This record gives sequence, C-alpha cells and structure tokens, in this order.
Amino acid sequence: MIDQLIAKIKETGNPSVVGLDPAYAMIPAYIRREMTETWGKTPKAVGEMFFAFNKAIIDAVADLIPAVKPQIAMYERYGLEGLSAYIRTAEYAREKGLVVIGDIKRGDISSTAEAYAAHIGGAEIEGENFDLWKEDFITVNPYFGIDGIRPFLTPCQEQNKGIFILVKTSNPGSGQLQDRLVDGEPLYCRVADLVNEWGAEAMGACGYSKVGAVVGATHPRQGVELRERMPHIFFLVPGYGAQGGKGADLKGYFDKDGLGIIVNSSRGIIAAYQKDADFAGPEEVGPEFAEASRRAVIAMKEDLQNAV
Amino acid sequence: MIDQLIAKIKETGNPSVVGLDPAYAMIPAYIRREMTETWGKTPKAVGEMFFAFNKAIIDAVADLIPAVKPQIAMYERYGLEGLSAYIRTAEYAREKGLVVIGDIKRGDISSTAEAYAAHIGGAEIEGENFDLWKEDFITVNPYFGIDGIRPFLTPCQEQNKGIFILVKTSNPGSGQLQDRLVDGEPLYCRVADLVNEWGAEAMGACGYSKVGAVVGATHPRQGVELRERMPHIFFLVPGYGAQGGKGADLKGYFDKDGLGIIVNSSRGIIAAYQKDADFAGPEEVGPEFAEASRRAVIAMKEDLQNAV
Repeated sequence: MIDQLIAKIKETGNPSVVGLDPAYAMIPAYIRREMTETWGKTPKAVGEMFFAFNKAIIDAVADLIPAVKPQIAMYERYGLEGLSAYIRTAEYAREKGLVVIGDIKRGDISSTAEAYAAHIGGAEIEGENFDLWKEDFITVNPYFGIDGIRPFLTPCQEQNKGIFILVKTSNPGSGQLQDRLVDGEPLYCRVADLVNEWGAEAMGACGYSKVGAVVGATHPRQGVELRERMPHIFFLVPGYGAQGGKGADLKGYFDKDGLGIIVNSSRGIIAAYQKDADFAGPEEVGPEFAEASRRAVIAMKEDLQNAV
Repeated sequence: MIDQLIAKIKETGNPSVVGLDPAYAMIPAYIRREMTETWGKTPKAVGEMFFAFNKAIIDAVADLIPAVKPQIAMYERYGLEGLSAYIRTAEYAREKGLVVIGDIKRGDISSTAEAYAAHIGGAEIEGENFDLWKEDFITVNPYFGIDGIRPFLTPCQEQNKGIFILVKTSNPGSGQLQDRLVDGEPLYCRVADLVNEWGAEAMGACGYSKVGAVVGATHPRQGVELRERMPHIFFLVPGYGAQGGKGADLKGYFDKDGLGIIVNSSRGIIAAYQKDADFAGPEEVGPEFAEASRRAVIAMKEDLQNAV
C-alpha cells in the first residue's frame, strides 16, 4: 500500500491528505436540517450529517489528492451511528480511488493489539476474512514497545497494508514526554530508532517501509532531524494549517526526490468555507460549500510544491 | 465514581475486576451453534455470541465483584456488530450494579481527545447529552502529554467519572520505552509524576483521585515503587493470572488500609472452564461453564485477601 500511496502522490503531484474530521459546528445548516427532519436530534442524524458532509467534500476534491485521513474519534463520539459514518466514508473514498488512512492511534499489549490489527487485517470468522473497517493504513501508538507493534506487522506484510507509528506529535504539550532526554537524546529519537528497526521487517518495493511515522509539522527542527534519522520511513505529517504548520516549514521533511511525506490538513480544508469570504456562513451556505474545500486543496498543493 | 468503586470493593471484600475480553475460541459450542443458526457465519453472529457469553458470566459472578473491564479491542475487531455487543455488555453490567471500566486506551491531541472524552462525558446534540458508551471509567494513553489528558478531566470533575492512565504496562516488552532512563529515572516514573500532577485536579472524597494509573502486576518491584510515589492514585492492575501475576506479588501495591488497587483477570476468569477439570471443553460444555468463572473469582478473591 505504501507503493500505491507513493504512486498516487506522483500521479496527483500532491503530497497532501485531507483529514475528514467533521464536527457538528462545521456542518452547513442545509445538511443539518435535512437529517434532523428525517432522524430527529439523534446520533443517527449526526452520523448521516457527517457522511453527507464528507461525501460532498470527497466529490469536490478526489481528483486532486492521493488520500484521505478520517479521524475516528470524531465519529466514535457519536457511538455506533458515528462509527457507521466513519466506515461508509472510508468505503466511499476507496470507491473514488483514494487511499484511506484511518487515524485511530490504537495501541495495547500483544493479544489486544492483535485484535486491533483487524482494522487493516480483517476479522477471521470460520475461515472467511471480513474487511469491516475499510482502512489501508492506520496510526498506532508506540507506548507498549514491540509487543504492541508486532501484531500490526503481519497485515502489513501479508495483506500489503501499512501503519504510521506516533513519533513526534503536533500538539504543543507533546514535549512533556516525547522530548525528555533518554541517554542524552529526546525520547522521540529513541522511538524513531525503534520505528527504523520495526520498519526494516516490512519494506515496500519503492525504498520506503510499510511502517511509517507520524511527525508533526509544528516542530520543523525535529522534523529535519527525524528525516535524516529515518531515511526509509515515510512520514504522515499532521499540524499543517489550522494548527500553524506551513509549507515552508517542511522543506527538510522531503527526501531528495521531493517525496517521503504526506501532509494532513483537516479543518483548513473541510471547514474552508467558513474562512473564505466568497462563501456564506454555515447557516446560509448551500452545496457549493465544498467548492471552498477544493480551493483550499489547490492552495495547499501549491504551498507544498513551493517547499519541495 | 472512584468513591463508588471503593465502596463496592469494601462491600464485596474483593479488589478484583473481571476482564470481559471474549475471543472466538473461548465461546462454548452451544452458544456458537445457536448464534450461527440464526445469523450465519457473520460479525453479527459473533457479536451475539460475545454478549450471550458475557451475560452468562456476569450473572454468575455479579454478587462477588465490584466491577468489570471489557477490553474494547476484542469487540472492535468485529466492527459495528462487535461494538454493539461491547455497549450492551457495559449496559447489562451496570444494570447488575457493577462499575464499568472501559479498557479503550485512547489518546490523542487536544481537540481529538475532547471527542474521545465522550466515552465518559457523553455526546452533546442540540443541548441533549447522550451516554452512548455506558462506561464509568476508561483507560487513557499518556504519550501526548497534558493536551491529551485535560479533555478527560472535565467529565471526571463534572460528571463524576474516572480515568486510568497507562504508567507501567504488564507486557514483557513494556520496558522498551517505559523503562528508559530520563534524568536518571525510568520514563514510567516521569509519567507517574505527571499523573500525580493531573490527578490533584480531580480528587474524590475518599483520599483517592478520579485519575488513576495502570500499573502491571508483572513488575512487582516497580509496583511498590509506584505505590510510594503516587499515594493518592488508585491503581488498575492488569497482568494477574494468565499473564503470570500472583496475589503474593501485589503485597506492596495495597495501601495501609488494604485498598488502593483493583486487580484485573480476564482469561483466567472468563475462560476458566477450559482449565478446570470438572468442566467439559468448549465443544461439550453447557451453560454451567459460567460456574467455573464463579469458582475462579472466589479463588482470586482469596489469593488477593491473603496478600493484603
């Protein structure tokens, strides 16, 4: 899947991924009204709002981007109905030819990690495999060490899936643990070394491993350091846009071929109509709201191309 | 909720929690057959198997224990149908008067952690709060630092819920990151200090914080060290039983009143019939399988009482 992702990035000339992280306040009122009329003020209505919102955005930008990254928490908040919208979103994105990165950040000890690995490996029932979550990549938390990672390597190797392991996250408080010095180096460097080690077991054809790393756009110095330290590890880069990261900060994250990373923007793309003066606000805007997302994707692509 | 948990531990005289972590191979054939006949070899059938299995065990042990801890990964593996069984299990346990600890180990940056906090805080839709996950406590991953923890403190304070933050996990590879020396001390000690700091913001009435810690039974030396370091933090202790932890290892985990911890056993209780010579194996056993779980709960209670 890492090879497909890289091929899609080359094809679109766009190393960016749209974070499909809907929140209630982002949904245009015309969608909210439609779903509330049918389903009432219920989790089911919210799930339907999220799916309709995502679908409009996917339709508007699918030809411009290689991948989407739905953040499962936004859906999980609304229980099973929310999660149903998550799965249908992933399925719809795949139908449109997009790679799906499930931002689930799971992590646990071995037997439990094995169960979570069904996200990409599928669930086995009496010899039949069910692909219930429709994800191509997922994000994984490294706190448990190798026992918590190994179960995810099996679907990477056997089913050509991929994972991105948290190394240096984009939030301002990430340093509280991740920057603590271990043997004279920050903890995230130790995690990077482990990702190198784990990633060597699951190399793709194109020089990058099926095991990638999450490296925030908001820490450019560390990003450059990590690029050098992990030459065969693809980066998923959150923190661009609404969180403050800019294309210019990411120069050193790319490899010499202008590849090696995929940059995520969520609010900056999906709620773009709320910041674009050419569009009405959530109460008045119509289906054209998704056009603002298209504009934002094009602007982000240009910003990233300037950084390469 | 920490006060209720402690009250229930005193009432039952039993500081243990049953880990409701079903796996397909544990389910007696009579349940498997029933559900497959109705639902086919589908995720729906597995969800129904898990719920029927859990219900039988809850019925057999509810009077002996203060709490249950379903591990969400085991259900998530089977998609929405699995998660429906998770929620129905939590709901049923609550009906039986048990405290529900959702072992979900979520963790993310602030806005996302806020969405995950709906697990205990509920989801707000147009002014109405929906308690969709039926959990009283959840487990949380600390890798993001305070930004990833703060959103969970709100439902702890406002809705009297609780969290357990991973400090030292029970798996053999936990040392790969958690034992690395930071300023001359292992990382898990640094996490413990943060848990103390975060926990001070949400104290219960009984001397323990609504913010607890996960400390594995399989590292007794560290457990004792952490008990001294975190005098007001309640411990959720995994790793007892199938993973190798014994009551005698836990002496130093208790406080001077014989409280301060709740010990989890999963396979050792729920799959007890498979190890008890008085019961038939999964192909032949009938509804009496849950009696073996009751015996195992009683044996565990005695083992822990000897340790106090």
